[in-house]
Amino acid sequence: MRIRDLLCMVFICLGYTCLVAQESELTIPKPNASQLAWQQAEMGAVFHYDLHVFDGKEYQQGGGSGNRTNPVPDYQIFNPEELDTDQWIRAARDAGFKFAILTATHETGFALYPSDVNPYSVRALQWRDGKGDIVGDFVNSCRKYGIKPGIYLGIRWNSFFGVHDFKVNGEGEFQKNRQAYYNKMVEGMVTEICTRYGELFEIWFDGGASHPDLGAPDVLPIVKRYQPNCLFYHNNQLAEARWGGSESGTVSYPCWATFPNPYSHAGDTHGDHIQLLKHGDPDGKYWMPAMSDAPLRGYNGRHEWFWEPGDEDHVFPLENLMDMYYRSVGHNSTLIIGLTPDPTGLLPEGDVRRLKEWGEEIERRFGVPLASTDGKSEVIDLVLPRSARINHIILQEDISKGERVRKYSLEALIDDQWKEVATGQCIGHKRIQVIDTIEASGIRLKIMQATSRPLIKEFSAYLVD
Amino acid sequence: MRIRDLLCMVFICLGYTCLVAQESELTIPKPNASQLAWQQAEMGAVFHYDLHVFDGKEYQQGGGSGNRTNPVPDYQIFNPEELDTDQWIRAARDAGFKFAILTATHETGFALYPSDVNPYSVRALQWRDGKGDIVGDFVNSCRKYGIKPGIYLGIRWNSFFGVHDFKVNGEGEFQKNRQAYYNKMVEGMVTEICTRYGELFEIWFDGGASHPDLGAPDVLPIVKRYQPNCLFYHNNQLAEARWGGSESGTVSYPCWATFPNPYSHAGDTHGDHIQLLKHGDPDGKYWMPAMSDAPLRGYNGRHEWFWEPGDEDHVFPLENLMDMYYRSVGHNSTLIIGLTPDPTGLLPEGDVRRLKEWGEEIERRFGVPLASTDGKSEVIDLVLPRSARINHIILQEDISKGERVRKYSLEALIDDQWKEVATGQCIGHKRIQVIDTIEASGIRLKIMQATSRPLIKEFSAYLVD
Repeated sequence: MRIRDLLCMVFICLGYTCLVAQESELTIPKPNASQLAWQQAEMGAVFHYDLHVFDGKEYQQGGGSGNRTNPVPDYQIFNPEELDTDQWIRAARDAGFKFAILTATHETGFALYPSDVNPYSVRALQWRDGKGDIVGDFVNSCRKYGIKPGIYLGIRWNSFFGVHDFKVNGEGEFQKNRQAYYNKMVEGMVTEICTRYGELFEIWFDGGASHPDLGAPDVLPIVKRYQPNCLFYHNNQLAEARWGGSESGTVSYPCWATFPNPYSHAGDTHGDHIQLLKHGDPDGKYWMPAMSDAPLRGYNGRHEWFWEPGDEDHVFPLENLMDMYYRSVGHNSTLIIGLTPDPTGLLPEGDVRRLKEWGEEIERRFGVPLASTDGKSEVIDLVLPRSARINHIILQEDISKGERVRKYSLEALIDDQWKEVATGQCIGHKRIQVIDTIEASGIRLKIMQATSRPLIKEFSAYLVD
Repeated sequence: MRIRDLLCMVFICLGYTCLVAQESELTIPKPNASQLAWQQAEMGAVFHYDLHVFDGKEYQQGGGSGNRTNPVPDYQIFNPEELDTDQWIRAARDAGFKFAILTATHETGFALYPSDVNPYSVRALQWRDGKGDIVGDFVNSCRKYGIKPGIYLGIRWNSFFGVHDFKVNGEGEFQKNRQAYYNKMVEGMVTEICTRYGELFEIWFDGGASHPDLGAPDVLPIVKRYQPNCLFYHNNQLAEARWGGSESGTVSYPCWATFPNPYSHAGDTHGDHIQLLKHGDPDGKYWMPAMSDAPLRGYNGRHEWFWEPGDEDHVFPLENLMDMYYRSVGHNSTLIIGLTPDPTGLLPEGDVRRLKEWGEEIERRFGVPLASTDGKSEVIDLVLPRSARINHIILQEDISKGERVRKYSLEALIDDQWKEVATGQCIGHKRIQVIDTIEASGIRLKIMQATSRPLIKEFSAYLVD
């Protein structure tokens, strides 16, 4: 180590000590176990399946929720004769997804499992003689393939029961009675979902579950009671993860896992607040990592969560998916991709193939690093194999102890000279740093600013060609 | 025959001839086959069974439809473990009922059969693992015991779907879409009911089925298409029978089977119109016989169509039921009695016993006449056994050719003198005439006024002690 480097380190240490004097390791926000698992999973799928998959029509072409709030005329069209949730989950696994979520209900209000409190469910079908349980099949397939199962519940809309943005349509005493009934029905469904299918990884309330004080069902205590290890996403009381502000499968950089409020947006998705969702707040007191979400069929003028005819060519190409991966997982955000089985009950072959390609490409690029290290100091050196060529660096904090790094730089030892090749702010669970291809014998991570002692659990270099 | 009697007859004949000159036998209103069968049946049951039978609560105590339009919180309470529709129908048969109607749906909207268009049905139940079909069981029991099955459909209210007096509660496009959906759902249910269970005797729409021009489901063409021999009761387009203006199990006298409009009340149940319902209109162009309806549990301060706890003592005593019989069947009206099985699925023992007593009492009184005749003239003599004591006379027109008699008297031959013992206006299908007990050797029916040649198919005398 030369004098220059030594001096540099001393200055960094001094700066660091000043910073941490103001904030204790004990008080910085940290993830709970479910948040930690959710971030470590990095990628998951959300399977969308509902009545209108079977009607051969296109929706949302006019924007908004379109006519999904118009009841599907004949629910008996729901007839996935070749349903095979194993095939769904194998496809998710092959993409590298670690968890999978299923829309147990969506905007129609139709339940994919045989509810005892919502008659508008698979039990009403001729399909499988009313004995089908897609949630059950789904969870079983997840467990079979080591994928963590989660459930998505749409309670904000219900085209059948007549619920519009949480409010039962209507007026007077009649409306009031039906609202009370609906809330109880929803709470019953949440209880069923939380008690019938074992431990769940995430419960995702479509558009949030509002707030009981606003007349919405009181779902939080139910999830907390029956699924204490499940990530709760979300209502106006609590968000254990937040929406990353777009459905592009990406978040902006930096994207902090902390937030100023215990809830994420409570319906506010405009202006400054959308920026807050995208970036988070490094000074926020609440741990709330960002989700990047996008439908797989979101390419070239379409953006469709549900299977619809003729969308085969709208499956994202591999390069778009890789870009998405960099700007979600690589930006400290968990990526959730929307998949949607077709009316036969299978995920379409093209989608399955693309997912496999994607998983293989991620593995090809990042499966084995050229070199890897870790460290608990403000300067960490990564020694590279002799004159290695590299163009990707991956950094990971041990976020179980919080997000500590605020500012860092990366230097490369090229021809015996340390040269800055990248800078950054947030590392969090994962930062994928793309740099121009260089030939270097070492990489140095310098943490210029942190709220507490940095805990770098992964510092790796890759050459991607 | 003495001179006086001969002259009398001549005068009657002249008067009759004058009358009939104005109206042809061809143009007077006549029943269709289903109406004729319905009137000849004389007595039927309407079984009420719905979710709230199982909740142990009392309804309608505050009057009106009470909180039956408030959804029953948990539909899984519907669990008639000992359901035995054979027991129901035997009880109906023992009372002498010739047909039985079941509320396939009532105000909750819950369907007692596994509908493919209304998920709020027995298919949603844990009971019988969702495989129950009470309508199917009911119809099978009816056929087993020779009772004609009919179905009652409540479509005016639906506490679950949110329908209030035919209108889906709500506003805007959302309401409009759900109204269209509801109407189609109802039409689907009517189609199911009309096509799944063989020939039906009557379809009874709760409170009428309104009119498609008023935005209500278009049910009439469906019934006419699939059940051409079924009595349609009723909507604002057609009533093949009419409500007799009360739920007392009686109609006023006279009660004509003809009516000025093809529909009965279209929601108008006040003032003059209620009198019209009670009496009918002898000059009405439409055949529309009157129903007398009452719940069996309507005695002593209660009037309850549905089983509720503690109503055992409100079963009508036999004398009240006999009075009802006289003032319904005996007034040319079909009597329909409300029966309601309890939460076990059986008709309560006390109700069963009373029905049997009633059937036996009707049989005891009217099973075998002292004397009987018929005739197609304006004067018909009934010769009695030597010095018979009598106190009841039953008259019946052959209503297949219309209701022709407008005014009549009954004379008794007492001590060789003809003496008027009763007068009347309407005979129709049946007139039970109660007179003081007399000892007579003959009875004479004199028809003073008729619209066409009288066709008396039954003229009988009875002694009831």
